[in-house]
Amino acid sequence: MEKTSFSNNGGKPIRCKAAICRKPGEALVIEDIQVDPPQAYEVRIKILCTSLCHTDITFWKLDSPPLSRFPRILGHEAVGVVESIGENVDGFKQGDVVLPVFHPYCEECRDCKSSKTNWCAKYADDFISNTRRYGMASRFKDSSGEDIHHFLFVSSFSEYTVVDIAHLVKISPEIPVDKAALLSCGVSTGLGAAWKVADVEEGSTVAVFGLGAVGLAVAEGARLRGAAKIIGKKFGFTDFINPTLCGEKKISEVIKEMTGGGVDYSFECVGLASLLNEAFISTRTGSGKTIMLGMEKHAATISLGSYDLLIGRTVCGSLFGGLKSKLDIPIFVDHYLKKELNLDSFITHELNFEEINKAFSLLEEGKSVRCILWMDK
Amino acid sequence: MEKTSFSNNGGKPIRCKAAICRKPGEALVIEDIQVDPPQAYEVRIKILCTSLCHTDITFWKLDSPPLSRFPRILGHEAVGVVESIGENVDGFKQGDVVLPVFHPYCEECRDCKSSKTNWCAKYADDFISNTRRYGMASRFKDSSGEDIHHFLFVSSFSEYTVVDIAHLVKISPEIPVDKAALLSCGVSTGLGAAWKVADVEEGSTVAVFGLGAVGLAVAEGARLRGAAKIIGKKFGFTDFINPTLCGEKKISEVIKEMTGGGVDYSFECVGLASLLNEAFISTRTGSGKTIMLGMEKHAATISLGSYDLLIGRTVCGSLFGGLKSKLDIPIFVDHYLKKELNLDSFITHELNFEEINKAFSLLEEGKSVRCILWMDK
Repeated sequence: MEKTSFSNNGGKPIRCKAAICRKPGEALVIEDIQVDPPQAYEVRIKILCTSLCHTDITFWKLDSPPLSRFPRILGHEAVGVVESIGENVDGFKQGDVVLPVFHPYCEECRDCKSSKTNWCAKYADDFISNTRRYGMASRFKDSSGEDIHHFLFVSSFSEYTVVDIAHLVKISPEIPVDKAALLSCGVSTGLGAAWKVADVEEGSTVAVFGLGAVGLAVAEGARLRGAAKIIGKKFGFTDFINPTLCGEKKISEVIKEMTGGGVDYSFECVGLASLLNEAFISTRTGSGKTIMLGMEKHAATISLGSYDLLIGRTVCGSLFGGLKSKLDIPIFVDHYLKKELNLDSFITHELNFEEINKAFSLLEEGKSVRCILWMDK
Repeated sequence: MEKTSFSNNGGKPIRCKAAICRKPGEALVIEDIQVDPPQAYEVRIKILCTSLCHTDITFWKLDSPPLSRFPRILGHEAVGVVESIGENVDGFKQGDVVLPVFHPYCEECRDCKSSKTNWCAKYADDFISNTRRYGMASRFKDSSGEDIHHFLFVSSFSEYTVVDIAHLVKISPEIPVDKAALLSCGVSTGLGAAWKVADVEEGSTVAVFGLGAVGLAVAEGARLRGAAKIIGKKFGFTDFINPTLCGEKKISEVIKEMTGGGVDYSFECVGLASLLNEAFISTRTGSGKTIMLGMEKHAATISLGSYDLLIGRTVCGSLFGGLKSKLDIPIFVDHYLKKELNLDSFITHELNFEEINKAFSLLEEGKSVRCILWMDK
């Protein structure tokens, strides 16, 4: 990548452009904002490119405080370069290429030290605050001096943002930044679900429900693990089911017929309890495992047949694909650089940052998988 | 054990006594019956002692064909000695001490060959037939010549029974037969759930819901694995909760307080969807695992909070503790012989076989954990 050079802004506010969400569902507005310097354990980064995922759309539309609040800078899938660092920041320096990640990894708590989970007992419970260690304190101000809210500790729809080190991963500068940005959220979530949560093995069978970037990444992860049959659609899949052509049959019945009794692993990547149930009964009796990746859209309760569960099925949920960001994302970068991991196909569109509202439309209408928004082009 | 000698009855019917269930919920009747010789892949065994578990009571009361049918010989937790063998029986010979097991292990199907499951794709789906390879054909006749139905391919409430080799495990004759009988169903189920399904590790925390023989065996299994805290009651447990003393608090809230956020593993050993949910939310965010061991008593649907699942919890079901009978039961026998595994405490009562109806009352009224019924005393 091109080397980014910074004037000596460390410790001073920066004025730059950001896409502000002023009201739920209304077009974002590119405004001049002020980004405060990073405090202790924080890093200010220059965003190189960002993309958007369905969670951005959900929170863009959501009108339900305190989850939703305005004005706000959305965006949580991006890549940037370190502009300045606050106190007590080890491991990051000006010029480092970094990924911001919504899911925290404090490295210190019992769970961060455990190999069994990527939950961070210290921080993960709070996804409401603006800044990780300073509660509702914001690093953004609009031109009238009013605080602008952060989003998921990232807020990447801005030329500059401030991110806590618990949410930041240093990566190799060798990977093209647009490909790297994909690993900041959706694609890593799918890869992690296949590799770390399900631990898909060679020769196994996989069904993916919901084929956005996350579902496609599950398929890519399963392909790399040597799965014999991956049922879904589009790239990476070996078999395809069109639900509208199943007639009277449930998708789970079609899958059972295709696999001689059910798949070894099924993944629910949409966030619908009804689809999770379908994914669940699509798995093989005795050993089938279903992984839930998506936040249930209506906070609905999951219903499972008790006998279907008793006879040896497993259901588990995971956030961010069970990944510990600082440990696992560099591994994905490495797989990409070795040309083992296909990231390029996820990028279906590229736009300038100023065209961000078009990117929202493309994703919402199902026309894009990932649209890269370039900050400087 | 005392050596049992047989006259040469191989190939001939045997007349003996059995406890017949003639009508749902009515006292069993000790009758003279005829036990046919074993056919191919079958073994006729002399029962040395048997015990009963809640599934016997469930099917004793059940009036819902084809699951329930009469007359029938119940009983599926026992130890016996081989009296004669049918054709194509390798690995068993007259005089071998054997455990009959309700859960099949054909050793040949894809699942039996897999280390991932104890489901037997060839046989496990059918738990209705009388004999494993001969459908509704029965090996029992009453004094009027009428066929008597088998139960779970074992029917141990008889002096002699015929068992398919897929349901039979040869064990060391060194273990006292009453202790061995416990390993035929309930205790093995609990031990297996702790060791094979949950894979409880040293220092972990465990909550057991339902403290019959299965739940107590989960606790014993967790104790042997070095669990730091086992919440339940009676032997093997380190902590005790009396639900009637929790006041307004849910049991899960009390457990979370006792463990600083929830247990690593919870086990539902009763068969109630509501209790499974309580077990589920008693586990630790990010890594908690809940194991369902009991058949839901009302075939009720399991309900789980979608967000509770998404943030890293796992729920799985298992039959017979995830054990492959022929491989795993001898390991438990070995642990007993090395004085590592406590089996003795499970036996709270001993009666003569003729007193079988008293054993039903003791278990139904919650007065016994396991009551051994001796055939020859």
